[in-house]
Amino acid sequence: MAVYTDLDAEALAALLSHYDVGTLTSAKGIAEGVSNSNWLIETATNPAQSQRFILTMFEGRTDIADLPFFLGLLDHLAAAKAPVPRTIHDRAGQTHRLIGDKAVTLIEFLPGVSVSHPTPQAANAVGAALAEIHAAAATFPMQRPNTMGPAMWAHLLTACGPQLADIDPTLPALVSTHLPALTANWPQNLPTGTIHADLFPDNVLMLGAEVTGLIDFYFACTDTLAYDLAVTHAAWSFSPDGTIYRPEIGQALLAGYESKRPLTPAERAAFPLLGQGAAFRFLSTRAYDWLNTPPGALVTRKDPMAFAHRHTFYAANPALFA
Amino acid sequence: MAVYTDLDAEALAALLSHYDVGTLTSAKGIAEGVSNSNWLIETATNPAQSQRFILTMFEGRTDIADLPFFLGLLDHLAAAKAPVPRTIHDRAGQTHRLIGDKAVTLIEFLPGVSVSHPTPQAANAVGAALAEIHAAAATFPMQRPNTMGPAMWAHLLTACGPQLADIDPTLPALVSTHLPALTANWPQNLPTGTIHADLFPDNVLMLGAEVTGLIDFYFACTDTLAYDLAVTHAAWSFSPDGTIYRPEIGQALLAGYESKRPLTPAERAAFPLLGQGAAFRFLSTRAYDWLNTPPGALVTRKDPMAFAHRHTFYAANPALFA
Repeated sequence: MAVYTDLDAEALAALLSHYDVGTLTSAKGIAEGVSNSNWLIETATNPAQSQRFILTMFEGRTDIADLPFFLGLLDHLAAAKAPVPRTIHDRAGQTHRLIGDKAVTLIEFLPGVSVSHPTPQAANAVGAALAEIHAAAATFPMQRPNTMGPAMWAHLLTACGPQLADIDPTLPALVSTHLPALTANWPQNLPTGTIHADLFPDNVLMLGAEVTGLIDFYFACTDTLAYDLAVTHAAWSFSPDGTIYRPEIGQALLAGYESKRPLTPAERAAFPLLGQGAAFRFLSTRAYDWLNTPPGALVTRKDPMAFAHRHTFYAANPALFA
Repeated sequence: MAVYTDLDAEALAALLSHYDVGTLTSAKGIAEGVSNSNWLIETATNPAQSQRFILTMFEGRTDIADLPFFLGLLDHLAAAKAPVPRTIHDRAGQTHRLIGDKAVTLIEFLPGVSVSHPTPQAANAVGAALAEIHAAAATFPMQRPNTMGPAMWAHLLTACGPQLADIDPTLPALVSTHLPALTANWPQNLPTGTIHADLFPDNVLMLGAEVTGLIDFYFACTDTLAYDLAVTHAAWSFSPDGTIYRPEIGQALLAGYESKRPLTPAERAAFPLLGQGAAFRFLSTRAYDWLNTPPGALVTRKDPMAFAHRHTFYAANPALFA
């Protein structure tokens, strides 16, 4: 939620000179995304016609080698009319450029706002949009392993060490009781494809109950499709502190997804286990960041317990959508 | 440079329902302003016509009691066709509203970017725009004392105490040698009016060498007009670290100002003293903030020495524009 790099108007204008987008008329650093810097850019080809773009500068957490996958995926999905922003290519046809040693990409601005208190109608539309992405990505030829899978959860939680109890005294037992079994039983044979893997409300733009854009595909990877739905379910269907499940939201999300791609019986049966995994995914990164964010950092630490509580819900409801 | 308050899409939409601006179609928290939160808002009255606004939420440093002055001034200047954004009034005619205990105002979005490396042409245009503001404000009926005048510089630097030397060992001597004489000799009889008092490059929007908007009038007050020019001169005419004076910028700024409002001989003679005051104005707040910004704060501390160096320049050039 910050702009990490100071990119002045002169540097922005120099960058835009490599694109057929006209000249820079406005640039505002925007407080979006957790680990990249973003600007809302406006250009004009003539005084009457202005265009808007999001300029993203990739900071620490995104590997430049992964950009062809992330940005190629956006172009593939946009070409299939899925609700994602397309990337703007420079005159040499490139989807990204370097400024110093950092990669930047220019992407289409999409209208819409992120909701904080979703209605069932909104959740239904989000479920349908996720299924559309899964369908449109079926012909996307690239692959990328999920670097944030079960092995990484274990790695991050091990790295937290005994300090995990400083976050909450119940956390070490939650991890030692559940993570080994979850990893051992992790579904291996469900349908796979390209997944978003991080579809929180702030990565969905909406106008009313209509989805105008899914954004921030920088955790996208090749993995179990129903796990993506479980991540989305965990992200949307609970109170922010994770203690209250909102069944009308969870059911609307599932119904929306199944309106475009019905789950198989095996996917339905595995859903609570996938939900437990989704909870561990965000519990592990939040716990690690909680203990390793320097006090002066320009980011707000997010409470790991919000996902510990979600895990408790999925573990207690092994027949959730059966 | 941050968004201090989390205002979600639902809260923004509720706020906008009090204005005749259509419905919310986009909202991005923007990294502008030092002490207030800002959002770039987009609304649509029909799908084909979108409008943009800046929403400002006043945080700690702005006194709500001063808003009628600040926002009334914007409306007065905009009505006189001076390059400032107008405020958008709600249906009850108010320039600001409350969300909880915080005041918010909706203002016109203006195109333009802030330059980091001004050309003489840009400096000339900025000088002319400042003189236009001074002229247009001559008929503005409200008054507001300058709360950031010499008494406040002394107060803040005294509050820094012996820690001032921790910033730089030369600072205590600079203050004790110069501030008492500066305060004693501070010009009292130069032409006064309504001044911006903080016209740094990031408060000026430009398209090429044209000024499209002066913004952030939240230090505006009734004070010496030539002091406003001295603040602007100090803000624009030096390398960022304050060690190098750029005479071509300083001269172009002055020439631009005088193209609209020639200085009196007394104003010219007082200019270097006013420049010393401008340097103390920002030295004092930066030094105080440097020593009093908590380590976890979402703001970047600015180097007080950049203005100590500017002070040295003005003190060494008592006949700068004579």
